Amino acid sequence: MKKVSLTGIKPTAQPHIGNWLGMHRPSLELAADPSVSAYYFVADYHALTTIRDPAELRRLTIDVAAVWLAFGLDPARTLVYRQSDVPEVFELSWILACFSPKGFMNKAHAYKAARDVNVAKGDDEDAGVNMGLYTYPILMAADILIVDADVVPVGQDQVQHVEMARDMAQRFNHTYGAEVLKLPTALVRGESGVVPGVDGRKMSKSYGNTLPCFSTAKQLRKAVMRIETDSTPPEAPKDPESSLVYKIHRALLTKERAEDLAAEYRSGISWGAAKQLLAEDLEALLAEPRAKYDELMRDPSAIEDILDDGARRVRGIAAPVLARVRAAVGVR
Amino acid sequence: MKKVSLTGIKPTAQPHIGNWLGMHRPSLELAADPSVSAYYFVADYHALTTIRDPAELRRLTIDVAAVWLAFGLDPARTLVYRQSDVPEVFELSWILACFSPKGFMNKAHAYKAARDVNVAKGDDEDAGVNMGLYTYPILMAADILIVDADVVPVGQDQVQHVEMARDMAQRFNHTYGAEVLKLPTALVRGESGVVPGVDGRKMSKSYGNTLPCFSTAKQLRKAVMRIETDSTPPEAPKDPESSLVYKIHRALLTKERAEDLAAEYRSGISWGAAKQLLAEDLEALLAEPRAKYDELMRDPSAIEDILDDGARRVRGIAAPVLARVRAAVGVR
Repeated sequence: MKKVSLTGIKPTAQPHIGNWLGMHRPSLELAADPSVSAYYFVADYHALTTIRDPAELRRLTIDVAAVWLAFGLDPARTLVYRQSDVPEVFELSWILACFSPKGFMNKAHAYKAARDVNVAKGDDEDAGVNMGLYTYPILMAADILIVDADVVPVGQDQVQHVEMARDMAQRFNHTYGAEVLKLPTALVRGESGVVPGVDGRKMSKSYGNTLPCFSTAKQLRKAVMRIETDSTPPEAPKDPESSLVYKIHRALLTKERAEDLAAEYRSGISWGAAKQLLAEDLEALLAEPRAKYDELMRDPSAIEDILDDGARRVRGIAAPVLARVRAAVGVR
Repeated sequence: MKKVSLTGIKPTAQPHIGNWLGMHRPSLELAADPSVSAYYFVADYHALTTIRDPAELRRLTIDVAAVWLAFGLDPARTLVYRQSDVPEVFELSWILACFSPKGFMNKAHAYKAARDVNVAKGDDEDAGVNMGLYTYPILMAADILIVDADVVPVGQDQVQHVEMARDMAQRFNHTYGAEVLKLPTALVRGESGVVPGVDGRKMSKSYGNTLPCFSTAKQLRKAVMRIETDSTPPEAPKDPESSLVYKIHRALLTKERAEDLAAEYRSGISWGAAKQLLAEDLEALLAEPRAKYDELMRDPSAIEDILDDGARRVRGIAAPVLARVRAAVGVR
C-alpha cells in the first residue's frame, strides 16, 4: 500500500523564491515518489483565526491553489481539496478535543507566542487570543487523522503539531483498545534550502527583501539588481562563499552547476554579470510557472473545478475514517 | 412566524420525579404552545466528555429519548434528533471558536468548578480537564445557533451558556455587519418545582433519596414509604407546611387540590394514610408514562426511526443556516 503524505497550505499572499525552494519544491518532489499518495489541502478555515474579510479569504484560497498548481502540482496524480469541503474534519475535532488534556494546549507554540507577547506588554496573558488560535492544534490533528495520513512534511516549527496529533490518536486508540486512528509521523524538511534575501537577512516578506515568484520578468530582474554587493572591482576574483549573489544563486542549482558557477566567481566576474546570470536562471525556472499561474488566474473556475473534484474524492476517504471513530465511541 | 425553542438533553440515567417536575414537564408544556416550534436534541457528543464506554453511550442515548417520548414528547408535533446527526453543528463550532475570546471560556461554570476542585486539592488547576469540557460552551452555542433558536428553556445554572451563545452570535454579526446569526434568549425555569427527596434534602441521585419515575409500582411505593416523618400520633392534626410527605405531594398537584390535601392534614391523617395518598397519585401520574417507556424499550428500533426522521428534518434547517455563515465568512 502507498503511504499517504498530507500537506496543509494556509492561504497567504504571493510566494517568494525562499518559499518555493524551501516548501513547494521539496513537497512537490515527494508527490513524484510513486510509493506515495500525496494529498494537499488549502486550510481556509484555519485562516479564519485571523482573516475577517470574506472577499480576501475567497481570493487567497483560489490564489494559493493557483500557486501550487502553477508550480507543478498535478491534480490527476495527487489529491487537492479545501479544508472547508470536509465536514468530517470538524466532527472529528470535537471528538479529539475530548481526548486532549487542556494542559497540552497551553504548550502549543502559537498560543505560547501570543501569551509571551501579552505578558511582555503587561497585558492579560489571554488578551486578544481567540479560541480558534488556542484550539488550532486540535483542528490540525483532525486534518491529519481524518485522511489516515502516514507522513506530514513540515518545517521544524510545525513538528509539534504532528506530535500532538499522534498523541491524540494514541490516547484515543488506547481508550478504545483498538487501532482506530492511524499514527502520523512528521517528515521534517531540511533547513539547507534557506535562501537569504537581497539584503542578506533571511528572505521574508516582513523584511521587504524577497525575490517574488510571480511578478513580471522585469520586476524580478529589478529585485535581483537590488541584491547587496561589495565594491570589489569588476575583473577581480571573488569569493563565492562570501557573496550574497552567489548564495542566492546556489540555492537554484544542482551541486555540479553550483561548483561551475563558483569557479567563474573565483576567476573574476563583475557583479553586474553575476546578477545577470542569476536573473537568467531565475527567469528560466519561473517563466513556465508564471505563465501557468497567469493562465489559471484568468479563469479561476478551472481551479474551483479541481477543488470540487478533490472534495468529492477526499470525502470518500474521510467518511469511512469518521465512521470507524463514531462506531468506536458509541455514536451509532 | 413561530418561535423556535430548543432543549438539549444530556444522556443520563433514569429520571426521578424531581427531574420530571422541574424539567420534563415544563419543557413539554412549552411544546404544547401553538406559537412555539419545539426542538429537542439528545446531546450524545456532549456526553463524550465523560462517557468512554461505547455501549453505555449508545444505551443512554436511546434510553433518554425513550424517557422523553414516554413523558409525552410528540415527534409528529416537535422535532427530536441526535446532536451527532448534525455535522453542521461541528463546523459552526469551529467558526464560533474564532469569535470566542479565550478569557470568556475561563469564566464558564463547568470549567471553573473543575479548576476549583483541583486548586482545593493542591493539583495543577487544569489537572484532568480535557478540551471537550473546556470548549463545551462553544459546542452548546453551535447547537443553539445552527437551528436559529429563539428561546432556550434552561435551569438557572445553564443561563450562562445561552448568554455565551448570544455573545458569540453578536460578535459574529458585528464583524460581518449583518444579522447572520439569530440571537437566542434564555427562558429560565422557575425554581418553584424543586422537590425534596425522601430524607428532606434536595432530591438527587447522588443522595440516594429519589422517587424514580420508571421503577415498578411496587418499588415506587416502597420509596414513598421511606419518606421521613415525625412521631405525631396517627389521629393528631398535622401541619402540612412542616411535613415532608406533604411538600413532595404538593409538587404533583394543582393549587386547588394541594389546598384540599392540606385541609386533610390539618384535620388529622396518619402518616401511613398520607403516604398511601401520595403513592396513589404518583401511580396515577406515572402508570401511563411507565407503560409507554416499557413499550418503547421493548423495541428500540422505533426510537431509532424517530431519531432518524428527526435527523433528516433538522438537517434541512441547519444546512441553510450554515450556508449563510459560510457565505458571510468567505468560505464559498
